[in-house]
Amino acid sequence: MSEQKAKVSKTKLGNFFEDFYLGMQIEHTTPRTVTAGDQALYTALYGSRFALSSSDEFARSLGLEKSPVDDCLAFHIVFGKTVPDISLNAIANLGYAEGILGAPLYPGDTVTTTSEVIGVKENSNGKTGVVYVRSTGRNQRNEEVLQYVRWVMVRKKTVDSPAPETVVPDLDKAVPANKFSLPENFDLSAFDDKLSGSPYRWSDYEVGEKIIHVDGMTIEEAEHQMATRLYQNTAKVHFNNHTESKGRFGARLIYGGHIISLARSLSFNGMENAVKIAAINGGTHVAPTFAGDTIYAWSEVLEKINLPDRNDLGALRVRLVATKNNNCESMPFKQEDGSYHPDVVLDFDYTVLMPK
Amino acid sequence: MSEQKAKVSKTKLGNFFEDFYLGMQIEHTTPRTVTAGDQALYTALYGSRFALSSSDEFARSLGLEKSPVDDCLAFHIVFGKTVPDISLNAIANLGYAEGILGAPLYPGDTVTTTSEVIGVKENSNGKTGVVYVRSTGRNQRNEEVLQYVRWVMVRKKTVDSPAPETVVPDLDKAVPANKFSLPENFDLSAFDDKLSGSPYRWSDYEVGEKIIHVDGMTIEEAEHQMATRLYQNTAKVHFNNHTESKGRFGARLIYGGHIISLARSLSFNGMENAVKIAAINGGTHVAPTFAGDTIYAWSEVLEKINLPDRNDLGALRVRLVATKNNNCESMPFKQEDGSYHPDVVLDFDYTVLMPK
Amino acid sequence: MSEQKAKVSKTKLGNFFEDFYLGMQIEHTTPRTVTAGDQALYTALYGSRFALSSSDEFARSLGLEKSPVDDCLAFHIVFGKTVPDISLNAIANLGYAEGILGAPLYPGDTVTTTSEVIGVKENSNGKTGVVYVRSTGRNQRNEEVLQYVRWVMVRKKTVDSPAPETVVPDLDKAVPANKFSLPENFDLSAFDDKLSGSPYRWSDYEVGEKIIHVDGMTIEEAEHQMATRLYQNTAKVHFNNHTESKGRFGARLIYGGHIISLARSLSFNGMENAVKIAAINGGTHVAPTFAGDTIYAWSEVLEKINLPDRNDLGALRVRLVATKNNNCESMPFKQEDGSYHPDVVLDFDYTVLMPK
Repeated sequence: MSEQKAKVSKTKLGNFFEDFYLGMQIEHTTPRTVTAGDQALYTALYGSRFALSSSDEFARSLGLEKSPVDDCLAFHIVFGKTVPDISLNAIANLGYAEGILGAPLYPGDTVTTTSEVIGVKENSNGKTGVVYVRSTGRNQRNEEVLQYVRWVMVRKKTVDSPAPETVVPDLDKAVPANKFSLPENFDLSAFDDKLSGSPYRWSDYEVGEKIIHVDGMTIEEAEHQMATRLYQNTAKVHFNNHTESKGRFGARLIYGGHIISLARSLSFNGMENAVKIAAINGGTHVAPTFAGDTIYAWSEVLEKINLPDRNDLGALRVRLVATKNNNCESMPFKQEDGSYHPDVVLDFDYTVLMPK
Repeated sequence: MSEQKAKVSKTKLGNFFEDFYLGMQIEHTTPRTVTAGDQALYTALYGSRFALSSSDEFARSLGLEKSPVDDCLAFHIVFGKTVPDISLNAIANLGYAEGILGAPLYPGDTVTTTSEVIGVKENSNGKTGVVYVRSTGRNQRNEEVLQYVRWVMVRKKTVDSPAPETVVPDLDKAVPANKFSLPENFDLSAFDDKLSGSPYRWSDYEVGEKIIHVDGMTIEEAEHQMATRLYQNTAKVHFNNHTESKGRFGARLIYGGHIISLARSLSFNGMENAVKIAAINGGTHVAPTFAGDTIYAWSEVLEKINLPDRNDLGALRVRLVATKNNNCESMPFKQEDGSYHPDVVLDFDYTVLMPK
Repeated sequence: MSEQKAKVSKTKLGNFFEDFYLGMQIEHTTPRTVTAGDQALYTALYGSRFALSSSDEFARSLGLEKSPVDDCLAFHIVFGKTVPDISLNAIANLGYAEGILGAPLYPGDTVTTTSEVIGVKENSNGKTGVVYVRSTGRNQRNEEVLQYVRWVMVRKKTVDSPAPETVVPDLDKAVPANKFSLPENFDLSAFDDKLSGSPYRWSDYEVGEKIIHVDGMTIEEAEHQMATRLYQNTAKVHFNNHTESKGRFGARLIYGGHIISLARSLSFNGMENAVKIAAINGGTHVAPTFAGDTIYAWSEVLEKINLPDRNDLGALRVRLVATKNNNCESMPFKQEDGSYHPDVVLDFDYTVLMPK
């Protein structure tokens, strides 16, 4: 008995493609109480200046009890929990969809995350497959803080294992307004745009309008490592230079969510009043980034959404593009052949709320 | 209409010299709730050990409700707010004066910052001018947390624009004691100098006394970037190596306030009982600093100030000098020709409170 | 008088071997209120995922009022306080013993640290000596948070000074169970191992069992500097590259405690349910580490300890070995001649609590 036990490895190596099956429910490890310390680090890492997550007083003027943490921080914390079970053996994080931000995440709240496998598809090479999961973070009152779908390419343990029946979920191209989950009592009628930083409100933005966010941020190894550990994201490629320096890229790979947060923070300059994210419609990490890269961003308004019964606010669907080492003056995106400009690193499609 | 709007750039590019006029009032963007997370980061960035901002119990023994955040953190947060409006196009931050620390800034307090233009002076080259502003940070009860004057050299948008009438404010050489704004109920009678770290009190310091603070701190890129973002200071030169590596210095420039905080923290060794800053009398960022530089500091007591009706404490006016890559054993300051020693990076004149 | 005073240096240079004597009591400077900000930084620096210090709800399910900060953070804060008095002139930190974790350290608690000299022994070279101290951190209710013994090799001020009588304390090889100081109301009966991350409980571990913790973490200068300053540890070798680049190692030395925390965090993968440290039995910093090193870890179960009257939990005495730039697949430890494998940097002997 003792001998046998001693041989059982207690170390977790993550799930492989064969371990996933349609309808599989996963309760992720390590519930996480979010604190003012997390938000302070978030500010230090990205310099975010959106008034809602910067000032308790401002949050109260919009009907909330105090400042919730940044919506992207909520996303990263929920995402981080899923990594040990979903993507430890992932080759690529392929996409996001149907992300819905729900109850505001306040300092003191505790988030627990679960996932359901909603699709599986073996690749034709027989070595890898794509897994679709819907992950949900809930607070201590069991209210949904965030749910979103992502799909990842995962290694198979053995090439011989039989392929499962292919199921690819039918996902919304963009989260429709009737699925938004606005915070209770959230009301932008008293919105103070002197404090928020811009006179431009919902009605001032037009579909097709493009905004270059001007500033650039250079990433240091210590910064992305600290961020990614803060989210308790355990993907090895971000932390281990002993292996990564000899690996595929010759360097530690930066967590894709770090780029989302940098781009969102840079977007403040030109979209100051986009105080809250309502939905994440899609997203592609187009190219990897590494320490030393300087991130820039530009946005395009894709859609203007009128919310029924809301005179205080409207929604904008926005494409947020991040580049590396390219100041975005030419708004790089896709090239003639449909492929992305080589400097583009993120193509993110999300919906923000703005005062009317 | 739609066409026209789409052409309006919503990105802020900051004010130029012509945009400022005497008496101009500016309400700065992004009110900021300060938290225990900010203070933890401050400790991690500078290693400050002054007992007042380290221990709630110590703060209570001096009549306060709990530990206020470090006085320099209050300064940086107020300063950071002013950058997008005052110094985004600044060539140089020329000086400080009349800085008065008021109500302690407690975790949970929200700071809002305003500025008034109190002087303008075009330079003879017609390309730049000097703007003097008095900036004031107030908490959610509208109590003054900090006010100070700074003057910056700002670019003109067009050389042809006419020069305004020159107005240079008459500023105090040092903040006089009757302008100090000590916290309510602040009383150092029960001061415990075992806990604070030194037996040397106000009466033990002499005018002309010089103290070498011995230790040195090497600055990393990630550190000064995280600090400057924590203060929501948006000056581009601190963050963008893509442009700065090709710029004037070939490297990201470190925010001058980062050096003030390092020097103040280093000054603990020898001035442990200088628990609170009462005033900032003046300050010059003598030379730029870059990642890799090691900061040292030394102090000189300039003046001993007896506060009327206070038997518990007195004030010391102190010159705090910071150097780079020079251990301060020779107390480098000015040279025979009146210019600064090339290793000096900061000449800071401030007034601290000490138990009697 | 004034002249004389001006010549008294107020700068502290730390104690030398001659300054210590048996029975000496030291009250260390700078009481420290611990906050949620400290814990957030701790998570960002090490990525720790133990459920007890990650979730208030989880902590409450075990009978505590909320999440205490990580046990190692408590250790570092107490340790940091002792540095200016004990080890500023230390050549080496030789060992630890009799470490007992007591009252949980909650955000909001204020720690004050004292030490007693319990042994002195001059080395035969007459230039250095070994000092043994027992340091104790207490909270604002005077409850013991932590006590531990460490011994350090300290320089003598003058070679001629006479040697004190040698006293070497008799220390426990390992802290016996009857000296453990478990938190009041701490009860693991309702332990949820889905949330904690592993089905393996106390009964699943065997004496002699070895666990390779798989992951590696590369250390950056900014990270260890921020950590060490957070602990208000003032040892110069960690911060000053101006001197250290020309010194013994040619680089800043990383605080040994940083490695303890990295190894403990890495040990989560395989020992997820070791939610609380009960005791630190011993520890040796076998070799120095520097920025750029990648830390790996493996553990060996040394002893299984049944606690009388506790059906909810048991204790495991564990050896935690950390290496640099060696993935621990071969579990490097000691070599045939008894010396450590050259890649081993930490040999740490501690006792953890686990649900039964």
